[in-house]
Parts: sequence; structure tokens; C-alpha cells
Amino acid sequence: MRRLYHLPLSPFSRKVRIILGEKGLEATLIPEKVWERRPEFLALNPAGEVPVLIDLDGTVVVDSQVIAEYLEEVYPDRRLMGFDPAARAETRRLVAWFDQLFQTEVMAHLLYEKVNKRFMGGGEPDSAKVRAGHQNIHRHMTYVTWLVERRKWLAGEEYGLADLTAAAHLSCLDYINAVPWDAHLPARDWYARVKSRPSFRTILADHIAGMPPPRHYADLDF
Amino acid sequence: MRRLYHLPLSPFSRKVRIILGEKGLEATLIPEKVWERRPEFLALNPAGEVPVLIDLDGTVVVDSQVIAEYLEEVYPDRRLMGFDPAARAETRRLVAWFDQLFQTEVMAHLLYEKVNKRFMGGGEPDSAKVRAGHQNIHRHMTYVTWLVERRKWLAGEEYGLADLTAAAHLSCLDYINAVPWDAHLPARDWYARVKSRPSFRTILADHIAGMPPPRHYADLDF
Repeated sequence: MRRLYHLPLSPFSRKVRIILGEKGLEATLIPEKVWERRPEFLALNPAGEVPVLIDLDGTVVVDSQVIAEYLEEVYPDRRLMGFDPAARAETRRLVAWFDQLFQTEVMAHLLYEKVNKRFMGGGEPDSAKVRAGHQNIHRHMTYVTWLVERRKWLAGEEYGLADLTAAAHLSCLDYINAVPWDAHLPARDWYARVKSRPSFRTILADHIAGMPPPRHYADLDF
Repeated sequence: MRRLYHLPLSPFSRKVRIILGEKGLEATLIPEKVWERRPEFLALNPAGEVPVLIDLDGTVVVDSQVIAEYLEEVYPDRRLMGFDPAARAETRRLVAWFDQLFQTEVMAHLLYEKVNKRFMGGGEPDSAKVRAGHQNIHRHMTYVTWLVERRKWLAGEEYGLADLTAAAHLSCLDYINAVPWDAHLPARDWYARVKSRPSFRTILADHIAGMPPPRHYADLDF
């Protein structure tokens, strides 16, 4: 069986889970407490991070975007990155936007401070960072709105890796009720479309003990 | 003519310059002071970062790894990422290692504090960060050594994107004499091999006004 080492509130793990869902590929999910730095896990990924995919033939693939490229090459029937080099470049540009810029400006402030620190025993959230994260998210939501007012999906006319990557990040923040949806209605409409896809069901079913999501989290008509 | 917006000491820009050299593709280099946030440049790349490539047909490609994937698709004659999905995954894993982990643990501490701050008027280097960067670099040099003691090049038997990405980062640090080569001789031997390739000549010829490199920087037998 295919295996995916992951964490429920890791946006990078969620990205891969959604890709697997879109491509119709099954995988056993194995939660990995990366902060424990298990030697057997470090042997799989010396960088010590999730996600790590072990494919049916035993190939070990590390890093969400590396896994995305690998799955697109090995399981191309359902394409998620576009059909020509320029379209793929636009998809990858937006993936990099969320995996790097959004990650640095928003996720590292909000998710890390509010969630990761708690599980890793890192102390109280830094309120200045949390405030910065709440401020920074608006420019990204504005950018999502800008895109979906010009295109059907983030990277163009087809749903794909840009949408599911952005939604993977936002879904983690939505789990802790940190997305200002009401101030960004076109972005909310786009997210509702992503959320209603079957590939998102497993994400919406996530439930972390002692940390329930807000009621709207799994609601398709939120 | 193909154009590349870049900065001489941006490891991500250097990565693309070396790829262009390996593939025999010419480009006009246009320095872009990203911290000035020129509206015309932000229109090309809303993320506001170099490198940005404008290809012959006008296609705008943003982000070093997105450019690397694009060039590998559009100009495949000289392949730099490997010949099967598992080999490409290993190449991309190491690229992500340097572009993300090495960038965060070393480059952000050393290059940002010592160089970027100076050009951007950000004040004096934070000595605690500089110290952390000098400490952190050893584990990465040890990893390079571990790899080249088991393989001819970082990702396997062929020189490729993993090597040139790692060397792009290290070359920026070498320009400010911040690489502890003497403590990592196998890594130095590997770097000497990368450095002696024709694609590296333009990198070794870089000269930033008021900030000359150490004598060994451009020396192939350093």
C-alpha cells in the first residue's frame, strides 16, 4: 500500500492528500510527530519534515512540491498542472506564492504560533506575530479575489494544483477560524467551490483531539 | 533577446544564470533593485522578487525553481534534472533542501545580515544571527560531504540541477568569504569541480562595487 507520512494541520501534507484524491490514488496516512525527530523517519527524510510519500514500488519522495511533480509524471491521467509549459509555469508560480510567500507572511505567524507551539511545547503565542499574521492575510485574500475575478480558477480556466495548494493552506487557517472570509467574498466563493470537491472530503473530516474546528469548517455552504 | 531580471548575489538568480549557461541559452542580465519595488517590475512579478525570466516569445516566468522546470521543458536537449521520475525527485529534493532549508538556516542569517541589509539600508548585522549562520553551515557542508562520498555528484552519477543549486548558494557565501572550506575538504573538491565548468564563469566574474570578493573566489584551484 502507498503510504504518506503527514500531519493533519500541515498545509504541505494536505496539499498532497488532495492531489492523491484528485488522481484517485489511495494511501495509508501515517501521522508523524516531526518534532520528535525519530531516527527511522530522519532516514527517510533527512530534512525531518512531512509530507513524505512512499509509493507502491518503494520510491521515497520528499517535499510537497517534489511529490506533486512526481505524481504528475507517474500518474498523468488526471493532470493538475496545465497542458503547456507557460500554463504549468503559471500554476507553479502560484504554488510557490502560497508555499513560500503566504507560508512566511501568514502561516508561520498564525499556524505556528497558535498550533505548532502548543503541540511542540514551545510556550505561549507571540502576540505581535499573531497580529502581523492577521494583518498580512488580507493582501493574499485580495490577490485571490483579483485572480478569481479574472479567471475561473486561480491559474486559469481549469481547476488544478494552484487552487488545491492555496486551499490546503487556507483550510488549516480555517480550522482555527483565522480566515477573514466576510471581508473577501469572491475568495470565499472560490474556496466553497474547491471545498465541495470530493478530494477535499478527507480534509474536512479532520478532527484534532482537544482542538475542534469552528462549525463552518466542514460546512459546504458556509 | 531573452532577458533575466536578477541580482548578482541572489543565489536564486545565480541558479538560473548557471542553468542558462549549461543549456547554451543567451540572456541579457538586468539588475533589479527589488527593495525599490518598481511598479513595472511588480507588474511582471507581484511577489516582487528576482529572478524573473522573459523568454524569446515574451513568456514571463517567475521564481527560480519555476524557471528551472520551464527551461527543462522548453529546452530539453541538455537535461539537468535526471531521466526518470525517481531521479528527478532526488534532484528536486536536494534543490528544495538548498532553496528552503539552507536558505532559512544559513543564507538568511549570513547573506541577509551581511549584504542585503547594507544595500537596503537595514542597519548593522544582527551578531546573534550571523553567529547562528556560521554554526548552521557546518551541518550542510557535512551533508554535502556525505553525499559526494557516496555519489559522483550530489544527486547521483550526473552533474545537474542539485549541484548547480547548491553551488549557487555557496558561491554567494564564498563571495563574502563565509564558507569554512578547510573543515570540509570533500565538499571543497566537489565545489571545485562545479566551479570549473564553463557555466560558472559568469558567476566568478561578478564584482560588486565597494565589496570585492576574497582572492580565492574566482580561483579554480583554490
